[in-house]
Amino acid sequence: MLSFSHSIAQSIEVVELLGVLAFAFTGIIEARKKAMDLIGVYTVSMMAAFGGGTIRDLLIGNYPLYWITHSGYALTLLGFALASSLLGAAFYDNKLVNNAFEVFDTLGLGLFATVGANIAQQSGCDFYISLLLGTVTAVFGGVLRDIVCNEIPKVFHRNELYATCALAGSFVFLVSIQFGLANLAAMLFGVLATVLLRYFAMKYRIRLPF
Amino acid sequence: MLSFSHSIAQSIEVVELLGVLAFAFTGIIEARKKAMDLIGVYTVSMMAAFGGGTIRDLLIGNYPLYWITHSGYALTLLGFALASSLLGAAFYDNKLVNNAFEVFDTLGLGLFATVGANIAQQSGCDFYISLLLGTVTAVFGGVLRDIVCNEIPKVFHRNELYATCALAGSFVFLVSIQFGLANLAAMLFGVLATVLLRYFAMKYRIRLPF
Amino acid sequence: MLSFSHSIAQSIEVVELLGVLAFAFTGIIEARKKAMDLIGVYTVSMMAAFGGGTIRDLLIGNYPLYWITHSGYALTLLGFALASSLLGAAFYDNKLVNNAFEVFDTLGLGLFATVGANIAQQSGCDFYISLLLGTVTAVFGGVLRDIVCNEIPKVFHRNELYATCALAGSFVFLVSIQFGLANLAAMLFGVLATVLLRYFAMKYRIRLPF
Repeated sequence: MLSFSHSIAQSIEVVELLGVLAFAFTGIIEARKKAMDLIGVYTVSMMAAFGGGTIRDLLIGNYPLYWITHSGYALTLLGFALASSLLGAAFYDNKLVNNAFEVFDTLGLGLFATVGANIAQQSGCDFYISLLLGTVTAVFGGVLRDIVCNEIPKVFHRNELYATCALAGSFVFLVSIQFGLANLAAMLFGVLATVLLRYFAMKYRIRLPF
Repeated sequence: MLSFSHSIAQSIEVVELLGVLAFAFTGIIEARKKAMDLIGVYTVSMMAAFGGGTIRDLLIGNYPLYWITHSGYALTLLGFALASSLLGAAFYDNKLVNNAFEVFDTLGLGLFATVGANIAQQSGCDFYISLLLGTVTAVFGGVLRDIVCNEIPKVFHRNELYATCALAGSFVFLVSIQFGLANLAAMLFGVLATVLLRYFAMKYRIRLPF
Repeated sequence: MLSFSHSIAQSIEVVELLGVLAFAFTGIIEARKKAMDLIGVYTVSMMAAFGGGTIRDLLIGNYPLYWITHSGYALTLLGFALASSLLGAAFYDNKLVNNAFEVFDTLGLGLFATVGANIAQQSGCDFYISLLLGTVTAVFGGVLRDIVCNEIPKVFHRNELYATCALAGSFVFLVSIQFGLANLAAMLFGVLATVLLRYFAMKYRIRLPF
């Protein structure tokens, strides 16, 4: 049982890294569209990947920040930004990459939402604020990315549900914890809720009614 | 006397809530103009209402943040954003609401400026920095709102004095404290200064000479 | 020896003030271009001068912020913004000022990069994160300035190396420390690296290859 939850924990770490990469990838694409150089591409990808968690941690005073004490993430993104520069359009204008992109972006959305809600709750936030901060963790990297690229954040007028899926994931996670589920199980339910809602939203073009 | 200052304190809480709602309202209007959905409207209204105080608290390390430990505010704004969505244009394109809006926005400006200066001073800031942070508390919610809506912040090229009124309110509050006045009295003088200056600025179209 | 390093420390303080003024100056020019009033000019110049260090300190939780406990800086910038308003275009459309500007901006870039890397390292960050935070200290004031002026940050698509020069300065500083050099010597080497690279980048129009 221990080794089972251990391997789940490891899987989560792997998927989390893939989520970080997917978010960084959105930053690289956006920065390239604006004809930024390597410095710009790297900065925007860092903001997209770590911006949401950083804003959450600043709001609750949760020091030290994860990416500051684990510099491997920032170095990985540097390699990623360099690769995107060397490969050019081939890096992102690529069907395989684009399909993988949606999958990891959605997994990242769910993971960031549940991890964010978990951290907020453990630092003493109540249900509703934890719900908000889980969603902030998942979507504010994209908000920072769009602000620095001089765009109105896409998450505020999406064609299909996006932030709502992160909200749903945080909600399911927090309710599962309330019902006494173990952290890992609650997290898996939360990610599942995000992924399913996002899948149906994209398939049937579901958007907020107002 | 105790019950008198108690009822003043309660009145301040009521006016503060109205100020929060007025600031949130500016966020709702701005977000609607940009055709944002409910998520966008809610986020922008939260930023407009709590952004100034949050920036002040991050700058002085004043944890935990007020709106994070008092989730009732964030829930109230959710109801407010929902109402604006259900009522549509009728919600804000409405003469009664618009007149009330200017009154509460000005009261909120004065209250946020004096409360902000007070918090800064109590955390050890000197006169000038408290003056600045009082003004930041009052106007940076609007700055965040405009940045996220992809506009140059209106407060930086107002037709009539606006940030200056917050500055005046902070100044009068801090000087009153210096002269030994009680907190509540100093606050009332500060709010009065903001309201009067804003009233005359709007009536006679007073603007900064440069 | 003590008095020698003492006079170096004093020289650094003088150059640092000149760097702060140069950065503030970029904010004044940008804000004037957008027809902002005195409030806007002052705010943007404060962001340009203190934004980078403030973001670094928020990210590592390094309280209290320097400009909050040393209000003389904020007051100096107020005088600076007022002078720019009274003198108008004569203040910045002026050959002497413009030549001095490039010199101080480059010195400021180098100083902020080395001081930033130093503070990050002393608060426990490893080599790579200190390198990043040194660069953030040097260039994120300009990023905030451009965001609030509704522009894509110039540093992300410079014609000649700019952030790269700050990065080089941080790098040389951190390597010198690694090799056991005294703080002041390492700082001088770091600033020298920034200045030289920036000089050659401007002279030969060197830019990032991608």
